[in-house]
Amino acid sequence: MSKKARTEFFPSISKIQFEGPQSTNPLAFKYYQPDEVIMGKKMRDWCRFAVCWWHTFNGQMGTDPFSNVKTHLRPWDKDSSMETFLTRVDVAFEFFTKLGVDYYCFHDVDVAPQGESLTEFQSNLDTISDKLLSKQKETGVKLLWSTQNLFSHPRYKDGAATSPNFDSFAFGCAQTKKMLDVGKKLNAETHVFWGGREGFATALNTKVKSELDHMASFLKMAVAYKKKIGFTAQFTIEPKAREPTAHQYDYDAQTVIGFLYQHGLENDFKVNIEPNHTTLAGHDYEHDLRMASALGMLGSIDCNAGQPYLGWDTDEFPSDPRKALLSMLIVVEQGGIAPGGNNFDCKLRRESTDIEDMFIAHIGGMDCLARGLIGACKLVQEGLMKKALETRYSSWNTSSLAKKVEDGKATLEEIEAYALAASEPKTSSGQSFGEVALLLCCK
Amino acid sequence: MSKKARTEFFPSISKIQFEGPQSTNPLAFKYYQPDEVIMGKKMRDWCRFAVCWWHTFNGQMGTDPFSNVKTHLRPWDKDSSMETFLTRVDVAFEFFTKLGVDYYCFHDVDVAPQGESLTEFQSNLDTISDKLLSKQKETGVKLLWSTQNLFSHPRYKDGAATSPNFDSFAFGCAQTKKMLDVGKKLNAETHVFWGGREGFATALNTKVKSELDHMASFLKMAVAYKKKIGFTAQFTIEPKAREPTAHQYDYDAQTVIGFLYQHGLENDFKVNIEPNHTTLAGHDYEHDLRMASALGMLGSIDCNAGQPYLGWDTDEFPSDPRKALLSMLIVVEQGGIAPGGNNFDCKLRRESTDIEDMFIAHIGGMDCLARGLIGACKLVQEGLMKKALETRYSSWNTSSLAKKVEDGKATLEEIEAYALAASEPKTSSGQSFGEVALLLCCK
Amino acid sequence: MSKKARTEFFPSISKIQFEGPQSTNPLAFKYYQPDEVIMGKKMRDWCRFAVCWWHTFNGQMGTDPFSNVKTHLRPWDKDSSMETFLTRVDVAFEFFTKLGVDYYCFHDVDVAPQGESLTEFQSNLDTISDKLLSKQKETGVKLLWSTQNLFSHPRYKDGAATSPNFDSFAFGCAQTKKMLDVGKKLNAETHVFWGGREGFATALNTKVKSELDHMASFLKMAVAYKKKIGFTAQFTIEPKAREPTAHQYDYDAQTVIGFLYQHGLENDFKVNIEPNHTTLAGHDYEHDLRMASALGMLGSIDCNAGQPYLGWDTDEFPSDPRKALLSMLIVVEQGGIAPGGNNFDCKLRRESTDIEDMFIAHIGGMDCLARGLIGACKLVQEGLMKKALETRYSSWNTSSLAKKVEDGKATLEEIEAYALAASEPKTSSGQSFGEVALLLCCK
Amino acid sequence: MSKKARTEFFPSISKIQFEGPQSTNPLAFKYYQPDEVIMGKKMRDWCRFAVCWWHTFNGQMGTDPFSNVKTHLRPWDKDSSMETFLTRVDVAFEFFTKLGVDYYCFHDVDVAPQGESLTEFQSNLDTISDKLLSKQKETGVKLLWSTQNLFSHPRYKDGAATSPNFDSFAFGCAQTKKMLDVGKKLNAETHVFWGGREGFATALNTKVKSELDHMASFLKMAVAYKKKIGFTAQFTIEPKAREPTAHQYDYDAQTVIGFLYQHGLENDFKVNIEPNHTTLAGHDYEHDLRMASALGMLGSIDCNAGQPYLGWDTDEFPSDPRKALLSMLIVVEQGGIAPGGNNFDCKLRRESTDIEDMFIAHIGGMDCLARGLIGACKLVQEGLMKKALETRYSSWNTSSLAKKVEDGKATLEEIEAYALAASEPKTSSGQSFGEVALLLCCK
Repeated sequence: MSKKARTEFFPSISKIQFEGPQSTNPLAFKYYQPDEVIMGKKMRDWCRFAVCWWHTFNGQMGTDPFSNVKTHLRPWDKDSSMETFLTRVDVAFEFFTKLGVDYYCFHDVDVAPQGESLTEFQSNLDTISDKLLSKQKETGVKLLWSTQNLFSHPRYKDGAATSPNFDSFAFGCAQTKKMLDVGKKLNAETHVFWGGREGFATALNTKVKSELDHMASFLKMAVAYKKKIGFTAQFTIEPKAREPTAHQYDYDAQTVIGFLYQHGLENDFKVNIEPNHTTLAGHDYEHDLRMASALGMLGSIDCNAGQPYLGWDTDEFPSDPRKALLSMLIVVEQGGIAPGGNNFDCKLRRESTDIEDMFIAHIGGMDCLARGLIGACKLVQEGLMKKALETRYSSWNTSSLAKKVEDGKATLEEIEAYALAASEPKTSSGQSFGEVALLLCCK
Repeated sequence: MSKKARTEFFPSISKIQFEGPQSTNPLAFKYYQPDEVIMGKKMRDWCRFAVCWWHTFNGQMGTDPFSNVKTHLRPWDKDSSMETFLTRVDVAFEFFTKLGVDYYCFHDVDVAPQGESLTEFQSNLDTISDKLLSKQKETGVKLLWSTQNLFSHPRYKDGAATSPNFDSFAFGCAQTKKMLDVGKKLNAETHVFWGGREGFATALNTKVKSELDHMASFLKMAVAYKKKIGFTAQFTIEPKAREPTAHQYDYDAQTVIGFLYQHGLENDFKVNIEPNHTTLAGHDYEHDLRMASALGMLGSIDCNAGQPYLGWDTDEFPSDPRKALLSMLIVVEQGGIAPGGNNFDCKLRRESTDIEDMFIAHIGGMDCLARGLIGACKLVQEGLMKKALETRYSSWNTSSLAKKVEDGKATLEEIEAYALAASEPKTSSGQSFGEVALLLCCK
Repeated sequence: MSKKARTEFFPSISKIQFEGPQSTNPLAFKYYQPDEVIMGKKMRDWCRFAVCWWHTFNGQMGTDPFSNVKTHLRPWDKDSSMETFLTRVDVAFEFFTKLGVDYYCFHDVDVAPQGESLTEFQSNLDTISDKLLSKQKETGVKLLWSTQNLFSHPRYKDGAATSPNFDSFAFGCAQTKKMLDVGKKLNAETHVFWGGREGFATALNTKVKSELDHMASFLKMAVAYKKKIGFTAQFTIEPKAREPTAHQYDYDAQTVIGFLYQHGLENDFKVNIEPNHTTLAGHDYEHDLRMASALGMLGSIDCNAGQPYLGWDTDEFPSDPRKALLSMLIVVEQGGIAPGGNNFDCKLRRESTDIEDMFIAHIGGMDCLARGLIGACKLVQEGLMKKALETRYSSWNTSSLAKKVEDGKATLEEIEAYALAASEPKTSSGQSFGEVALLLCCK
Repeated sequence: MSKKARTEFFPSISKIQFEGPQSTNPLAFKYYQPDEVIMGKKMRDWCRFAVCWWHTFNGQMGTDPFSNVKTHLRPWDKDSSMETFLTRVDVAFEFFTKLGVDYYCFHDVDVAPQGESLTEFQSNLDTISDKLLSKQKETGVKLLWSTQNLFSHPRYKDGAATSPNFDSFAFGCAQTKKMLDVGKKLNAETHVFWGGREGFATALNTKVKSELDHMASFLKMAVAYKKKIGFTAQFTIEPKAREPTAHQYDYDAQTVIGFLYQHGLENDFKVNIEPNHTTLAGHDYEHDLRMASALGMLGSIDCNAGQPYLGWDTDEFPSDPRKALLSMLIVVEQGGIAPGGNNFDCKLRRESTDIEDMFIAHIGGMDCLARGLIGACKLVQEGLMKKALETRYSSWNTSSLAKKVEDGKATLEEIEAYALAASEPKTSSGQSFGEVALLLCCK
């Protein structure tokens, strides 16, 4: 097909433009200006936005547990043939380009049919990844990360890396190896491991310790293979609580980080944090971002949102400016999120059936985070928060004994002697600094 | 006072007797027979029951966030003088003895008035612990664990080990050192660290990384001092989510265990699991017991219960036979809980005002766990569960490649080769074994 | 097909027999003896067990939000033709008969293909319901209830009775009318309305008041039509919170009952309570049963169970003897549940793939409730609870002023006069009666 | 004491001024300009802000379930004498005046000591209310509402209107009568009933139906007395879930409204909605405001905030601009909240110990809601939302059959005929209008 004759899949949409905060055009950016520099970096480099394939181009959009009949009817979703999958590559890159997003992400099963055997699946992946590579070169859009889906196939009903069935484990290894090869081919900047079904419904039919050890073995083999092939992507694990198994091993950021330390893997992995997973774990939206960053382990972000009073992963586009500010503040404080990014692991509502909704939702998400970034930079630049922190912790800087504690050289006895001689501690007000400051900044 | 003339505080109560499952006498045991041997151990040695001081003898029972006026009016709660505190020691040991419990637990502030200074507090603790030691010898009741309360005093409003104020940290160290001395004096079998206010309300006024490092320093100094004085108690950390701070550092078992590994403390501490804290963290009642035990880190149990749909620590006496079975099964599977035990970190409801309720509630809790123990032993002895587990995981025993994985010697490449040659895995039914088996056993 | 030649779909299963509590045979009853009389009624008449069609015979079993590939592969699930649907009728009645259950329940879309038009769907329902009626006569199995599915078809993506689109409303009315006809034909004893998608995702695109009024109009038309055709089934509404819409109108029992009173429908409807919906609403398992029964509105039960710490409808088979006792106690106290029953709105886990699991799970559920029934009757017959209640409320019987309050004839002034003259109320202990009694009874 | 000599309690604070959004002065308003007119009303009349006495002046501030030692030490909190209570009246009115708030609210026990008897309590209330009235006249500050505390005294441990003990009920009536008299004296604009302990811990010791009937009797007597004395305040009931009893009768807005209809009280009461209670019930922040307003029953607002992942009433000052917009939008859409208002049922954190924090927190809350008001008015004035709603529901206006449904004159038969003749409904996109619009507006 010549370039001229190429089908346009979103003929009603032109490249999305910036119109500023007063615009009421849902198909324009109000905050996101990719090339504007703020605190020394372009907005696009702070944000590193990515579109996810699975919620956007998987052909089953709009289904939910109460209906397996989809509502998002797209002309290109004809069947499950390779041709349809190949067409979706064109659709996707037109979408990325018109939207103005720099990255995308996918699972193996999103982009290629699984066929009748692993061999056929691998062959399909080769064909598709050739086309993906070609489109990357053509458009400049890059692969933020790819991953293997080890949770949808019936063979993984009891888990993959933690399956009681060794053959399921083995098939999971094979899918993983292939995707490491594909990631290398496509220059993926990170590689995600989400252990969807790694966990248990009831401990009574589960060897918990063995399963955790198998998971560690699996990850170690992946590290070894990555090194062997010279793949340089940052590995990340994505924590999730509650879904699909009642007891997920990778419950939250601290659980995963603890697991990595237990198995000596702390230098090989970081975490990929999805706020909707964080909230499912019962933490505040930005909690896992904060904890992971504090521990030097924040690798990438699946920047979606849930609803606090719903108990499942709703994967909504972020639309809360305050949460966006609190999240982007963490990114700003750690100096950026590269080689990770902000991947929109988000889906349109079943009710949102217009093709334009695909753009409107992504624009809304990008604007929300861009606005959060602007507010976060403002907060940092004003310096009020930093000053308050320094004041609040100042006693740790003014005492030689405190220094000794931090150096690991103090003893309980000498601190007791100090305390017995001291007068009652004078604690200062916590000042609700956060609430007040945020209210000021979230404009 | 001569032994003859000694006041009896519970004159309506005689030593609690076993009457068997058909009894309707609330002041008799239906299941707990301390000296009955089951699976090679006396029930008292499987259970190692302890009464906690704070919910039973602290003089403020029956208050709650909606009323600071207590409803449990006891004749011995006269004032906050040393005399009243000393009287409570007599009350407590009469209670322990009549109930037939082998252990008790306390915080420093439960048993002694804090006075006007740390020095006075230490002196009060010396006086009280002399009497405790004497009563232990007289009655044979032992100290399961003691601990320092580093969360109630205003000086700890922002935490103790993680306080922004070094003096608060120092006072916490002093209290801890003293309680290690007291624990050694009273032959405590474990020593608990519950970091009540270690966490944050908002990350915006908090140096998360520094605070975690300070906590590690604090724990390391405690380990050093314990070794120095030859105190042999097992150290445990008690996880808790959500209360009192919105973001507690010691969220749950896996978080704490991960923290220990990050700081090289995994050989010095185990965890003390409270099921009501587990459920506050959003996990099933027995989840943390299971995970801690699987990782070899289950040190002791605060055997209470919450209500699943309430969002705070209700600290109820266990009364659910199914949950008791699931918990005691874990204890049985790991061969016992010593040097830890089952401490009733439980309180009477505000509405339960009779003095006899103190006994009825503890008897109910002890019977509930005893019944769980009996059911758990039955389940283990029937062997159905073990057999089902072996079948479910059998593929891991029949393949040399699986063995290689477990030995850490396999590679993704060879496993891929195996998978490509294999046919689609044949996974067996998960069999809902747990639910069915439990229904059979919970009789 | 002659009777001789009829295919047997569960050849490995014979009619399930009672073997008693000591049996370890998962394919036998341990507690449920249908014809045993207890407190004046046969167990089968207290329990009125029903099997639901949708989780048992809908051909898509084992899928979940993380995989649309089913794992429960049944030989009879060939395709979506009428022939397959007709075969499933034979499968179902063989299952009902071998299991020994007296009732079943279904939605229109469960039993018949929807075809290309409403007309075709109605015709298919006529054909299928002829066969259902014939099988009912042949086996004696009865229809507890049927209902219309107004939530799965894309036309109901925004609701049916509360749809912003009048045509969707109209199609919902048509399906409802048809199912009232079918229910009458099959002698359904109740008829359920579950407003699956009646609610909203965001109030910003919703006319809440209009939608509620439309729902009331819909229900009133259904009442009118029922009366017109002489259909005598009890109408019930099934409350549910959170799923599928974030804000469900029929949140819980009290919300629905309040709605009925607001619209003068309180004599035409009762509620059908599903405990897993109750727990999704944040209430204790038996809460809605209790409240509905207290208000004279408990019509029927979807006797399943969820997991307290999971936020979606897991629809598990009941397996907790204590919750079964608490639920059946309410049924016993109100003298039975007819014309409603206990419908197993429960599904096998994705992992439970054996065909025998269908029986094992239902047997477990039936035994669990039967055991609850036995315990509840024991609790009532012992009379301890009743006596405690009478004592606790005795002051309301001994004062003429209290009588005047209950008769609605007292005034604040005269009660104030009484209170000013009285001494401080002497409240008795709440006695934690429930916990203690249950622990005794749950054997 | 002469006016000249009057003590100033907040000497560091002057009357709070407006400085605009760019100000970083925590002791200035950024959004709230009381006399600015917006959509036809002054901001003060849209907002009707009130300070609550119990969290601000009760003398026990800063305590929590983990410490009964307060941290907010105020020089005027000397003891529990009448003199201290009288001084607090001066403190409070200085606070109201400097803050620039128009209303306040209180419970009987907040403002006066309870003394040794009801008689003494009534006498104390007379003395205090004389002074309150005098200060109201002096300052122009008005009483938004007052109420009786029927949950803190031990006599109410099992409830008041629903107590099993008639004498407790009677004392509750006496307190209520007195507060109706006090409310009339002080020209309260509404009167709140919060049934703190009306509910149950376990249904096994509770006559649910009797208790609900007693509650209705109590409310009816209050209505009768109000009419008798010519008190014109709007009565409201404040719903709350989970605290302090596990099963609160007044769970949420719809439950309370349903109860009112069941007892014929729907014209005598509206609801007073506290968002932190709404979220405890498992609903979104603004859900109960929305539902109550839709049903014509929104009477007043306790405008606080909780934290979504904490399970108790944290009573924080509102600080989320998006939630403020969503809430004030409802107020704007119903034309105002009078005679109710926005009462700050909020408390400073235990850690926030500076006296200035009292001002900073209230300023933050007022600014947050003022900003929400400005955004809500902008959203309404832009008209986008209204237009989208009209389009979405247009089919209900274009069909005569739809009209017939709304008029209650249609039948299922005629609608079925319409549906059978119609083609498949064409539903439009739900458009995620809310998210997009809000993102635009929340600036």
